[in-house]
Amino acid sequence: MKLLDLYAKMKGDLSVIEQELERSVSDDHMLLSEASMHLLKAGGKRIRPVFVLLAGKFGDYNLDVLKRVAVPLELIHMASLVHDDVIDDADTRRGQPTVKSKWDNRIAMYTGDYIHGRALSIATELPNPRIHQLLSKALVQMCIGEMEQIRDFFNTEQTMRQYLLRIRRKTALLIAISCELGAVATGVSRTHSSALYRFGYNVGMAFQIRDDLLDLYGTEKQIGKPPGSDMRQGNITLPVLLALRDQKIRGPLLNEISMIRSQEGMADTRRAITLIRNSEGGELADEMANRYIAKALEALNDLPAIPARKNLIDIAHFVGKRNY
Amino acid sequence: MKLLDLYAKMKGDLSVIEQELERSVSDDHMLLSEASMHLLKAGGKRIRPVFVLLAGKFGDYNLDVLKRVAVPLELIHMASLVHDDVIDDADTRRGQPTVKSKWDNRIAMYTGDYIHGRALSIATELPNPRIHQLLSKALVQMCIGEMEQIRDFFNTEQTMRQYLLRIRRKTALLIAISCELGAVATGVSRTHSSALYRFGYNVGMAFQIRDDLLDLYGTEKQIGKPPGSDMRQGNITLPVLLALRDQKIRGPLLNEISMIRSQEGMADTRRAITLIRNSEGGELADEMANRYIAKALEALNDLPAIPARKNLIDIAHFVGKRNY
Repeated sequence: MKLLDLYAKMKGDLSVIEQELERSVSDDHMLLSEASMHLLKAGGKRIRPVFVLLAGKFGDYNLDVLKRVAVPLELIHMASLVHDDVIDDADTRRGQPTVKSKWDNRIAMYTGDYIHGRALSIATELPNPRIHQLLSKALVQMCIGEMEQIRDFFNTEQTMRQYLLRIRRKTALLIAISCELGAVATGVSRTHSSALYRFGYNVGMAFQIRDDLLDLYGTEKQIGKPPGSDMRQGNITLPVLLALRDQKIRGPLLNEISMIRSQEGMADTRRAITLIRNSEGGELADEMANRYIAKALEALNDLPAIPARKNLIDIAHFVGKRNY
Repeated sequence: MKLLDLYAKMKGDLSVIEQELERSVSDDHMLLSEASMHLLKAGGKRIRPVFVLLAGKFGDYNLDVLKRVAVPLELIHMASLVHDDVIDDADTRRGQPTVKSKWDNRIAMYTGDYIHGRALSIATELPNPRIHQLLSKALVQMCIGEMEQIRDFFNTEQTMRQYLLRIRRKTALLIAISCELGAVATGVSRTHSSALYRFGYNVGMAFQIRDDLLDLYGTEKQIGKPPGSDMRQGNITLPVLLALRDQKIRGPLLNEISMIRSQEGMADTRRAITLIRNSEGGELADEMANRYIAKALEALNDLPAIPARKNLIDIAHFVGKRNY
């Protein structure tokens, strides 16, 4: 099944989630609601709710329960976007003005805080403390990931392990927990819910590596912003780290990165991108993404062969596909 | 009993809280721990933990349980301080450099997020979902309060109701919930825990009004920063609103506030302060603070006459005392 068909199939339940997302931020202070709603309306793939709902199919599927997990997870993701935009000083996201550009940094900071609070507050409508535990831990790990990203800005000496730990915290964990919470909330057995966690974790890792590749190999039209934005900001990603291992490319690439750093966000990254494309960095990063997808698929082996399992397999293949 | 004697009496239990506070932020990422620890070491009255512990005396007092409530409440308070310092562009707090001045705004933002996450995560070690609910709701309300403060910056037309709602969310609610959670965590009856909530709420309102008065009537030495900082920042507090009702003072005071606004944080507030001091604003605000203290004491009437009740009465009297 194609991904669009899956979305079409899940349309009814996803629209309930969408309504709940809107409701979740519309009861309170006008400016906060407005800023949050602006963010909501900018759209997004709602991939975390999709994972929650599919994981819920392995248990006692109950949309009324699942929405109280799916909505907080999407909100936590959204809050991290608002705060990232403050950090990145970004004026647009998905072609829309960001909260920080439409209002200001102060509003963006408190909007993020507010969405965090709402997220956790909605989850506490469910009585299972394990759900609250997993969510608050995800929040902590995401913050650590964000901080690690700042710490490692322009750090060309970072190890691959540092990169992997960072994207694990920044991206993979929330997707893993989306799968796990969908399962926990519907009473799936411990073995199966931890298999779903592993699936989500590995898909999440592949997803972030693909995203990092796209920023270097995609066109401006595909990415929605000029290529090399990560590097311009100081975010040294896997293909760059792998390209730096190539002794012929290392010297000139270090030079370029140092130049990019000195221009504080305004640099031309074309020469650096050409150097990386001339290295094996992209190919090697691609192989790593594939290995994560293979592990994700492996994690599904022990799960019952219900249609949702096939849907998860399709999503993994979709994430695994080269998108540039 | 004097407040210092109460702190001395509670020293043992408060030092356990202090250790837990340190432990709570020291397991993770170095920079986050360092920034959080910097904040912790700057001290503070730990008034929220004091309320939690005293409220716990009305139930089945258990420090191991109470610390999992006291630490999150103090952490939520601390996180709000870090984010406030970003907003206020403050370089020092309690005589120490702020996180945003020692590191930068990005670090301060994620440090705040991280501390929020840790706070909720520690509370989830207790199995009672009601505790998680109250905490996350407090977080949401505090964010709304902060946003309201920004919205109402330099708004000289705001009503007293707006002011009261704002300080309720910004300050009183977290103190109220400190009292309530200390009670809920130790199995205090619903009647008594809601009396403790009312006590905390009223003490919190009086506390914030006193704090706002101090900023206009205190000396630089007492306040730790130049008087009139609230006004310089745009925060129109109760004594100002009440002074604006005085028709002889209104015109010149509006003029001064408009001048202060135009100077973006660098203004001389002395003339405005003199105008306010010549009005009845201070006296009237003082009376309101006293009425909140009276209500706080009234809330204690139905509680058993254990020593903790006397301690709460002493704290209320202390907060009620004119401190300038």
